[in-house]
Amino acid sequence: VSVTAAAGFEAAGIACGIKPDGAPDLALVTTADCRPVTAAAVFTTNLATAAPVQISREHLRDGRAAAVILNSGNANAGTGEHGRRDARRMCELTAQELGCPPEDVLVCSTGLIGVPLPMDPIEAGIPKLASSLGSDESAGRAAADAILTTDTKRKEVVDLVELGDGRVARVGGMAKGAAMLSPSMATMLAVLTTELAIPSPVLQSMLVDAVDFSFNRLTIDGCTSTNDTVLVLASGDAGTEPITGGSSEYDEAARAIRNVCWFLAQEMAADAEGKTKIANIVVRGARTREEAATAARAVANSQLVQCSLNGADPYWGRVLSELGASGAFFDPEKVEIAYGDVVVCRDGVAVGHDTDALASIMNGPAVMITCDLNAGNGDAGITTTDLSHAYIDENRRTS
Amino acid sequence: VSVTAAAGFEAAGIACGIKPDGAPDLALVTTADCRPVTAAAVFTTNLATAAPVQISREHLRDGRAAAVILNSGNANAGTGEHGRRDARRMCELTAQELGCPPEDVLVCSTGLIGVPLPMDPIEAGIPKLASSLGSDESAGRAAADAILTTDTKRKEVVDLVELGDGRVARVGGMAKGAAMLSPSMATMLAVLTTELAIPSPVLQSMLVDAVDFSFNRLTIDGCTSTNDTVLVLASGDAGTEPITGGSSEYDEAARAIRNVCWFLAQEMAADAEGKTKIANIVVRGARTREEAATAARAVANSQLVQCSLNGADPYWGRVLSELGASGAFFDPEKVEIAYGDVVVCRDGVAVGHDTDALASIMNGPAVMITCDLNAGNGDAGITTTDLSHAYIDENRRTS
Repeated sequence: VSVTAAAGFEAAGIACGIKPDGAPDLALVTTADCRPVTAAAVFTTNLATAAPVQISREHLRDGRAAAVILNSGNANAGTGEHGRRDARRMCELTAQELGCPPEDVLVCSTGLIGVPLPMDPIEAGIPKLASSLGSDESAGRAAADAILTTDTKRKEVVDLVELGDGRVARVGGMAKGAAMLSPSMATMLAVLTTELAIPSPVLQSMLVDAVDFSFNRLTIDGCTSTNDTVLVLASGDAGTEPITGGSSEYDEAARAIRNVCWFLAQEMAADAEGKTKIANIVVRGARTREEAATAARAVANSQLVQCSLNGADPYWGRVLSELGASGAFFDPEKVEIAYGDVVVCRDGVAVGHDTDALASIMNGPAVMITCDLNAGNGDAGITTTDLSHAYIDENRRTS
Repeated sequence: VSVTAAAGFEAAGIACGIKPDGAPDLALVTTADCRPVTAAAVFTTNLATAAPVQISREHLRDGRAAAVILNSGNANAGTGEHGRRDARRMCELTAQELGCPPEDVLVCSTGLIGVPLPMDPIEAGIPKLASSLGSDESAGRAAADAILTTDTKRKEVVDLVELGDGRVARVGGMAKGAAMLSPSMATMLAVLTTELAIPSPVLQSMLVDAVDFSFNRLTIDGCTSTNDTVLVLASGDAGTEPITGGSSEYDEAARAIRNVCWFLAQEMAADAEGKTKIANIVVRGARTREEAATAARAVANSQLVQCSLNGADPYWGRVLSELGASGAFFDPEKVEIAYGDVVVCRDGVAVGHDTDALASIMNGPAVMITCDLNAGNGDAGITTTDLSHAYIDENRRTS
């Protein structure tokens, strides 16, 4: 159930010594024969991009890649020209071992910002890593383990695409992090693989849609990392025809890529730092989908709403206040707010409700907050968590 | 040292029974003879404005006011038409007692959102409040006490304006809250008084500048309340000529109003919920002043930066990451970041520094973080605090 589930991919993960505690910290995903295949990526929107993001972007210009080298324990961000040299060196060492051009290798890093990458353990580790490549489930699992930082659980998944002729093709994926484009301690990374044949621009379009539907609908603390990266490689080893836009095969493959991203995003939310509760914020009836998303994000990122969730307190006044401050336009006296199926505010004012039912919803592990603005047809949803003492404890000291 | 310091003003504060714990919760500021004087206001930008904000805006259309009635313990927000009736009724009752038209009374509320105002204690309280009006320091103090919510300290100040002829005029002020336009638990309210004669449009211009320089440079949690209000009343009792724009008297009066707002804002930061530390975020060298302010606000509102402050951890990587995610444009490899006078990052990468000096800065009660983007001449500063367990504890349950 991982990146090795799709035919034509191998993976490996080891502890090379970047992390002081000896946990796995170096991972590799590669095509079985190290030949370049079509690839696509979505990178962080942060202006201060990490060195590996800059180098991967450069190496992906031709829409092709043969391998991805990843490390945890150090983000190689805020490291300037020196950091770019180190990121290039990681690609070169990997290419040497695999026998492919360095430009066919992508690179991802996650961990502390502003500290030079310790190259000695990486130089020694990459040959060892390459020699432990495998195509079975345990190899995929080792790779998924080696990219974790403050995660408490490995995150991997596989989804199936029906090929019409009775056969199925697979889309596998692994990820780390607490949230995408709003990550916590460090970064969100995800690598997807598929045995389908998908031309690079088509793959890029599928990935952008999938990220928009999944990782971009998740926010833990509103902070956008320097390193966020989602990659997908398509080996074509299923032996099917290349997928073109507008075909039914396109829809099927796009659905599977979306499902894999969605599942990994849910796993991230479930494993978010210090969380005791997940909350799905749904805004309906905004003037546009964009305004709905803006309003939902404002509620989700609110420290005060997150504190109320931590206390299982259905204080909808804060939700109304965040909607009003979000920049979305609506009539505050037409707003309806519900926790689960219990409506607590209608036409912008409090309404009587079943307080026992409400208490049981608030004390559950996942709360759905639905806000109907009654201003149009724009809908959007976003997932967040509560704000806890444990989140502060996790993030107040880096050492 | 309060709203009664300026000639021509009286004040009062009592406990009328809105707050269950019997703390003071009803305040009045009025001209001594209840005649309308010039007034100006800055209200919240939140779309879901509280009823008292709506009514005060209506009553201030003529740029004149005779009195301000204020309550704490209930925000009268998320209360719809019923809330507007209650806010109007507060003005009417006050006007009856003072013998002025209800349109000359302004109204402010702060406390819980979404709960109807308890009108019985207010109806009984207003006559009692009016009969305890006084022009001495203790009357001003009673009013300043009665507007507090989660504040731990009364906030009042007076500043002097030299009149050229050797005489001085006073600007007094009182406030409550943890921050303006980014307030915590409840709301930020401030009432200023001055004995200068200042026409309403001139007064409005001075107040907007002063708020921009003070309360708008303070953020605790990025949340903007439904009730935020800053009011100023100018009695003209100093007997001076009305101040016009462009005069030296204008500069002097504007400076005093700015000082009073700045002092009250600093008092709010010092009293912010759960804080252990104040941080001044200064961004220099942005392309424009607006981009500098955007970048400074992004750093100040970052949960991760606030966690690092709580842990006294000089993790500048998070500062760089927030600058990069802020939307301001700059070259990340030209950025310099300093805590106090210790530069930790130059040209976007770590630089050697005195770690003992840095530790002593980080462990102090106030930290200055200076970020030079080296992209232009735009400068801006904003004040924030750390994020602590106590902030969560204060805000996780409303009851």
